Amino acid sequence: MEMLALLQADAEGLKMLGTGVAAGLASVGPGVGLGYLVGKTIESITRQPEMGGEARTLMFIGIAFVEALALYGLVFAILLAFVL
Amino acid sequence: MEMLALLQADAEGLKMLGTGVAAGLASVGPGVGLGYLVGKTIESITRQPEMGGEARTLMFIGIAFVEALALYGLVFAILLAFVL
Amino acid sequence: MEMLALLQADAEGLKMLGTGVAAGLASVGPGVGLGYLVGKTIESITRQPEMGGEARTLMFIGIAFVEALALYGLVFAILLAFVL
Amino acid sequence: MEMLALLQADAEGLKMLGTGVAAGLASVGPGVGLGYLVGKTIESITRQPEMGGEARTLMFIGIAFVEALALYGLVFAILLAFVL
Amino acid sequence: MEMLALLQADAEGLKMLGTGVAAGLASVGPGVGLGYLVGKTIESITRQPEMGGEARTLMFIGIAFVEALALYGLVFAILLAFVL
Repeated sequence: MEMLALLQADAEGLKMLGTGVAAGLASVGPGVGLGYLVGKTIESITRQPEMGGEARTLMFIGIAFVEALALYGLVFAILLAFVL
Repeated sequence: MEMLALLQADAEGLKMLGTGVAAGLASVGPGVGLGYLVGKTIESITRQPEMGGEARTLMFIGIAFVEALALYGLVFAILLAFVL
Repeated sequence: MEMLALLQADAEGLKMLGTGVAAGLASVGPGVGLGYLVGKTIESITRQPEMGGEARTLMFIGIAFVEALALYGLVFAILLAFVL
Repeated sequence: MEMLALLQADAEGLKMLGTGVAAGLASVGPGVGLGYLVGKTIESITRQPEMGGEARTLMFIGIAFVEALALYGLVFAILLAFVL
Repeated sequence: MEMLALLQADAEGLKMLGTGVAAGLASVGPGVGLGYLVGKTIESITRQPEMGGEARTLMFIGIAFVEALALYGLVFAILLAFVL
């Protein structure tokens, strides 16, 4: 019975590692993607300033979709850390 | 029999790690991909505004396919955490 | 009871590894993204200097979104290290 | 009691691994990002030399933001190695 | 007491792994970044040879910043291997 407590402590450690992996990895892709997205928007607006409103609207739609991906990972990290 | 309980606790920990890895990795690629997709759409629409409707339609079809990939990983993370 | 202390020490080690993974990974994507974002801003401003104010504003909005992703990972690293 | 010392030594090892992971990963993204940023600056300045001052100013602002990301990981590596 | 020696050997092994990870990863990003940076410089100088001095100066500033990132990882690898 003592041993059980022991390995539960070990499982706890692996869970923490999973938390860190989920939270860390979840910002790798979106970080690159958001940078590209905003970079291209800036490039486009400086070239055709008259399309600024249109481009900005699409940029924020895109940011929402990409941020959502990062939040999936974070939700799982929170789930692992506090619920499971 | 105690040992069995022990190792089940350990397996539990590895499962949690797998959950974190699945949820984290699943957003790496789609994060980059979505950013590129929306960025290129914005670039194209500012250049040929008359093609805006066409480009936006294709953008949302693309977003749906890329998001689907991220959800595969999430479904597996949920499966690992709650069903298996 | 001694063993319990042992494995808690082990779990502690795994938690530390998770901290390192979260803090390290969280700067991979945003690092690439921020570089691209600022690079494209510089390219755009040197080409159309008259759009400088607009581009700079968008650049800082973009930096804020990308930095936020890096901070998600850092907050989790701090959480793992000091709270959990 | 001896065992306690043992596993503390093991936890120490995992902490060291976390330190290495944090310090290593933290320079992956910023390394790519800084290279892109300075590369684009050089490309822009050789094309429009009259915008050199503006571009250089933005380049150093960008370098500061990207370096900050790398330092987040380093601060955690130092924290793991010497404080925790 | 023998066990103590064993696990200390294990911790030593994990520390060495951390050293390798730190030194290896730290050259991934800067490797890509430096290649891009010098590539763009060469592209720019061949296009506007009269800007060669300016571009070369900026290139060396950029190389210094990118190399610094790789050295962070190396310093940590040395620290792990010889000090900790």
